[in-house]
Amino acid sequence: MTVPEDPSEPPVAQHPQPGLDIVRTVSDLRRKIARFRREGHRIGLVPTMGALHTGHIALVRHALVVADRVCVSVFVNPTQFGPHEDFAVYPRDEAGDATKLAAGGAHLLFAPAPEDMYPPGDTCRVTVPGLGDILEGAFRPGFFTGVATVVAKLLIQALPDVAVFGEKDYQQLLVVRRMVRDLHIPVRIEAAPTVREADGLALSSRNAYLSAEERAIAPDLHWTLTAVADRVSHGHGPADAEQWGGDTLVKAGFTTVDYVAVRDGESLEPWAGPPRPGRVLAAARLGRTRLIDNVPVP
Amino acid sequence: MTVPEDPSEPPVAQHPQPGLDIVRTVSDLRRKIARFRREGHRIGLVPTMGALHTGHIALVRHALVVADRVCVSVFVNPTQFGPHEDFAVYPRDEAGDATKLAAGGAHLLFAPAPEDMYPPGDTCRVTVPGLGDILEGAFRPGFFTGVATVVAKLLIQALPDVAVFGEKDYQQLLVVRRMVRDLHIPVRIEAAPTVREADGLALSSRNAYLSAEERAIAPDLHWTLTAVADRVSHGHGPADAEQWGGDTLVKAGFTTVDYVAVRDGESLEPWAGPPRPGRVLAAARLGRTRLIDNVPVP
Repeated sequence: MTVPEDPSEPPVAQHPQPGLDIVRTVSDLRRKIARFRREGHRIGLVPTMGALHTGHIALVRHALVVADRVCVSVFVNPTQFGPHEDFAVYPRDEAGDATKLAAGGAHLLFAPAPEDMYPPGDTCRVTVPGLGDILEGAFRPGFFTGVATVVAKLLIQALPDVAVFGEKDYQQLLVVRRMVRDLHIPVRIEAAPTVREADGLALSSRNAYLSAEERAIAPDLHWTLTAVADRVSHGHGPADAEQWGGDTLVKAGFTTVDYVAVRDGESLEPWAGPPRPGRVLAAARLGRTRLIDNVPVP
Repeated sequence: MTVPEDPSEPPVAQHPQPGLDIVRTVSDLRRKIARFRREGHRIGLVPTMGALHTGHIALVRHALVVADRVCVSVFVNPTQFGPHEDFAVYPRDEAGDATKLAAGGAHLLFAPAPEDMYPPGDTCRVTVPGLGDILEGAFRPGFFTGVATVVAKLLIQALPDVAVFGEKDYQQLLVVRRMVRDLHIPVRIEAAPTVREADGLALSSRNAYLSAEERAIAPDLHWTLTAVADRVSHGHGPADAEQWGGDTLVKAGFTTVDYVAVRDGESLEPWAGPPRPGRVLAAARLGRTRLIDNVPVP
């Protein structure tokens, strides 16, 4: 395995590379993890949908700091896609993913078949009413039920000590934290900061959908959110700042704006101002590509 | 602890009685179970809502056959009661339960506080659409979501090798099995046969609600279901047998009949006849008391 020569790739983790094992069934996953446990290792899990980029590898590196053995799941989860969303065309590249994971220092790639994750007749779902119904949940009905269900399955399958999620999907991070707490799953959830291109665009597998023209506009999502956060931190009212942010995105060339929202950073309820942590979150479309991003209120 | 002198109590299990430990928090439960594990024991869990009777003790004895250390949870689960159901008056008797569990050979009583099972802000729910929406689920909306949620929590808290459920709550048994399979919880679910009074009435904590007159009628639920099962096993059509069963219960003095249903014993879909296993299930009211029961088609 060679290190990708992408110059935006951070330096390779200073971690011994015992090679990447690939497992495809829950029973093989459990066997491997049981062996890691017998060897006295702490287990880290990084759930992904594959099409891995530098942002995912940053999650792996985060996991390598807090765990001895890192398992990355790659599973394009059908239950978190709506009927008119991009499940069929979502990018898939297992060979490329495996190369990147080996170079990034991961130990185990778990690539289950859909019928192993969702056995015939599977109907059981994990829901997070409230937190899972607002913002992304309002625009993508059922999305967080799909996310909470698949993450619950993965955590119960692997029973890791720690699991790492990116702040890029900020509401997902909070939904997973709530689910883990409420179901008493014995795992610590770690948040890793969003990785961005040099021009500010948050890394996302869906950036691959953008045309050159859209790609040029896309970073404005980040800069607009940063400006909204700056405004509310200087005393502007959240509602005015949200309105300004939405208008700014449309002027920048975004096709539609689903929401620009100033929220409490823990509950995602309307932000009550300092000393509560604030978070500015947004979703907007560029042509047919839907982008999300978020920043803290400084 | 002394053995209760109720003559209907089966003989005491021939199991060493190291005394019953009582724990009230998830962290104490996990500490105790981790110690059992270090000692090399197989762990059995028997989830209950307390008000324990001989039927529950039979579950404990079943667990003692398949596990070395048996934990019984006693928790009147608020989320499985409807707004007009009997949560507030459901019988509670922790001291009596502890005495019976010690005599029955259980090792650990887990009696959590509601705020430990459902932390403030808890909204996460486990649903089993389809199987959880029919029969009991149709007459008690949300019931199986409450059951699946609390059982998922208990199983994830204790991570036992085996958990024992009574066939008395037959649909609950199937919902739990489906939930455990779909979420990949690493536990074996064991079914224990229904324990009955000498006159056929299935033991239930809710039998305590019955007046003397209602108590005299109650066994007809079992005998009617047995007759329905006998009819379909002799070639009567399920729909006719169900109708006959409902009429018979009303004639016997039942106030209302929610359902008498001949179903597939694994899916609870309409029974296709032999060689598929058949099950006859019913729910009916005597005054304000709702009774359920079920029998196999012979």
